[in-house]
Amino acid sequence: MACKKFHVIKPEIRVLGVDDGAFKPRNRGFVPIVGVVFRGGYWLDGVMRTKVRVDGVEATNKIASMVLNSPHYEQLRVIMLDGITFAGFNVVDIKRLNAKTELPVIAVTREKPDFNKIHEALKNLPKSEERWKAVLSAGEVLEVLVRNKKDKVYMQISGICEEDARKIVQLTSTRSNIPEALRVAHLIASGLNNLKQKS
Amino acid sequence: MACKKFHVIKPEIRVLGVDDGAFKPRNRGFVPIVGVVFRGGYWLDGVMRTKVRVDGVEATNKIASMVLNSPHYEQLRVIMLDGITFAGFNVVDIKRLNAKTELPVIAVTREKPDFNKIHEALKNLPKSEERWKAVLSAGEVLEVLVRNKKDKVYMQISGICEEDARKIVQLTSTRSNIPEALRVAHLIASGLNNLKQKS
Repeated sequence: MACKKFHVIKPEIRVLGVDDGAFKPRNRGFVPIVGVVFRGGYWLDGVMRTKVRVDGVEATNKIASMVLNSPHYEQLRVIMLDGITFAGFNVVDIKRLNAKTELPVIAVTREKPDFNKIHEALKNLPKSEERWKAVLSAGEVLEVLVRNKKDKVYMQISGICEEDARKIVQLTSTRSNIPEALRVAHLIASGLNNLKQKS
Repeated sequence: MACKKFHVIKPEIRVLGVDDGAFKPRNRGFVPIVGVVFRGGYWLDGVMRTKVRVDGVEATNKIASMVLNSPHYEQLRVIMLDGITFAGFNVVDIKRLNAKTELPVIAVTREKPDFNKIHEALKNLPKSEERWKAVLSAGEVLEVLVRNKKDKVYMQISGICEEDARKIVQLTSTRSNIPEALRVAHLIASGLNNLKQKS
């Protein structure tokens, strides 16, 4: 399959890391989604936010709108997601996200996704076929060695060549096993959520 | 005056940077306050949040509670504020914040505060005497040279020796003229606010 090849991957390549806040399992409400713009693995450049429904089906569209409406859009070179499921099983179709934003998408996870478990869980939800199609659309799960090749994480990609995606994940994972933009998006999303519960 | 002297200032000293989101001038509501935990000038360790009333008088108490209730509290060594006024003229009394949290407080601004202007503005608000006392309580405005001593910013301090405060501001201003925790707190608080207006 043809893939978009980067001419050059700069150490300060602008990446967006997207993660959701935690939620109480029985909460049928919305979960905040935080997008963090990083220059490579070092420097936070901006923050954006949207929200998606728990176990809803609109995460792809909501994240695409958040990106397209951001003042950082023109600078962004890659979207990185913390896996492909947000707010429970609100599945992001990374091929559609790539098409809508015209940006490569890399979904990164610390653990290898367990598709049997996901498939089972989806059966209990409305539009389970549509969700399962979005899961399959993310394609092959690829291993990436990080942190001087001592540890590994997993990625699924769209709109980018495997070797480029691997380089970008490695380059931006400066403080932990996952890209810094994703680590920080998680910390911000968690910090926001705490307030919601407290105040 | 005696001041608390640090035994040693580590490059990864845990600092909290506190800033508020923007608000529409006629909005009598609440403004989000974001606290960002940084290791020195490099590494985001956590995010906390509270909210204060526009032109209210509870910012000192609300920020103190946010800090004291945070899981990061035990690791924190310094609180840094983006100036002493939040959400309009909700003034933080840095001596009281220092006393309540038992942490040194450094309020940093890019521009030298204009006390005549502040005094005038306070006259139009309830409890103007109480607010003005909090402004005076912040004490002398000290110049700090940053970025290889080419630029300067200003600070007011409580519970810390001037030389230590100066070192910490210099050490943590890695990406701009102000401490990284404050730069990032501003970006997060601004990012959150945008959503409020859009959704």
